[in-house]
Amino acid sequence: METFKVLKIKGGSQEIIDDFVIEEVPFTINIGRKELVTLLCTPSDLKDLAIGFLFTSALIKKIKDIKKIVINQEQWVADIDLAAADIDLVFKRLYTSGCGRGILFYSAQDLLNRGKLTSDFKIPSAKIISLMVEFQRMSEVYHKTGGAHSAAIADSKGIIVFKEDIGRHNAIDKVIGRSLAESLDFKDKILITSGRISSEVLLKVQKCRMPVIVSKSAPTNQAVKLAREMAITLVGFARGDRMNVYSTEERIKLDV
Amino acid sequence: METFKVLKIKGGSQEIIDDFVIEEVPFTINIGRKELVTLLCTPSDLKDLAIGFLFTSALIKKIKDIKKIVINQEQWVADIDLAAADIDLVFKRLYTSGCGRGILFYSAQDLLNRGKLTSDFKIPSAKIISLMVEFQRMSEVYHKTGGAHSAAIADSKGIIVFKEDIGRHNAIDKVIGRSLAESLDFKDKILITSGRISSEVLLKVQKCRMPVIVSKSAPTNQAVKLAREMAITLVGFARGDRMNVYSTEERIKLDV
Repeated sequence: METFKVLKIKGGSQEIIDDFVIEEVPFTINIGRKELVTLLCTPSDLKDLAIGFLFTSALIKKIKDIKKIVINQEQWVADIDLAAADIDLVFKRLYTSGCGRGILFYSAQDLLNRGKLTSDFKIPSAKIISLMVEFQRMSEVYHKTGGAHSAAIADSKGIIVFKEDIGRHNAIDKVIGRSLAESLDFKDKILITSGRISSEVLLKVQKCRMPVIVSKSAPTNQAVKLAREMAITLVGFARGDRMNVYSTEERIKLDV
Repeated sequence: METFKVLKIKGGSQEIIDDFVIEEVPFTINIGRKELVTLLCTPSDLKDLAIGFLFTSALIKKIKDIKKIVINQEQWVADIDLAAADIDLVFKRLYTSGCGRGILFYSAQDLLNRGKLTSDFKIPSAKIISLMVEFQRMSEVYHKTGGAHSAAIADSKGIIVFKEDIGRHNAIDKVIGRSLAESLDFKDKILITSGRISSEVLLKVQKCRMPVIVSKSAPTNQAVKLAREMAITLVGFARGDRMNVYSTEERIKLDV
């Protein structure tokens, strides 16, 4: 866990608080010195994660299929030797069956392209509160099944695009896809998501050059760091009349 | 949405109810007749999802980079032609940057290996309720950050392995990995997860030959179908003194 100073808004009042944020790191699994996959995860129990990942991905059948496993806890790397002779087959099997999930989705290119977002966009905190009420009300599939994520693109007037999906990434891709198809200009828009804000989600907002992302859930420490670096306004735990602003809080107007 | 008859347990009483479950399908995106990725998603707005996925994966820069897009709504396929000449580069870029996420993770092999799980394992519903109380209490990172998923392996006495992670898949892989390392026998164990039960999660339980999976969240329709086909007991919405049993309910004992 990492502690950040964040701006906590509740109704018309605000204060700076210390907030615990979950850690997210890229964890690379090498088989025979070759990178198999990089998972985004919390850096605890990395050995268990590596073993479990290989097993549930059907790359090993039993623990004895692993000849050697060395974890570098500082750099988040697992170096694994398998008993099976045919390493190529392991790689082939993973990548044809879908090559893992929750994996490092941003490329070196993304990291190079980071730059501060300059935008005069501002939105009152009271407007974010009313947008979240509208957002929750629109979540039909969630209300019926309890199993949906939702995402929306909004401006300071209201929600423009709203979509639901079993996956939080899919719901976000759906609203971004629809916005592109409708030639929406992202520069005065905000992304609303029901899911956690991980680094992958933050980078999606950055690709669109959207100035603000709001979630009713928590961010990860990587997302907070990226948001601060790129000057994207990150709002988490937007529930009822409260919210935590983790980055670039000057875009949130308190007095309406 | 799909409707299933499920056994709803509340304290000592039970009834059969109709439950709405969110739909999950494999959606294949082809570029120039070649499969790029298969996403597991809800089958609405597939065109938006395809466009958004290509954009947030940095495979297109603008909507005009797509020359043609045809959606087959019945078979969940997008056939896309890009304006860019170099298709190979698109494939290379996706797969080196981590090849998507939330993608079809089970292989044809998994589907062939399905068979009914035979197991005499039984657990009282009251025990599941007390396991969930223990499970929630152990969720330290969640209590501090609000952003963690947790998973556990338990037997009818209590929780044996417990892990947390930013990702629900990672948390499950961690408890399975630890169990393998400790040579735990899965045949009289249950998997507990804080996250939704999708087909991918269900197939992890099946790989371990575990008879029961319990979640405080919702399942997808695919997970329910697979659980019924493979005779795995699937319990969802296990909260307070209630739960919904979606499959193979004879393993849940009501009278304790």
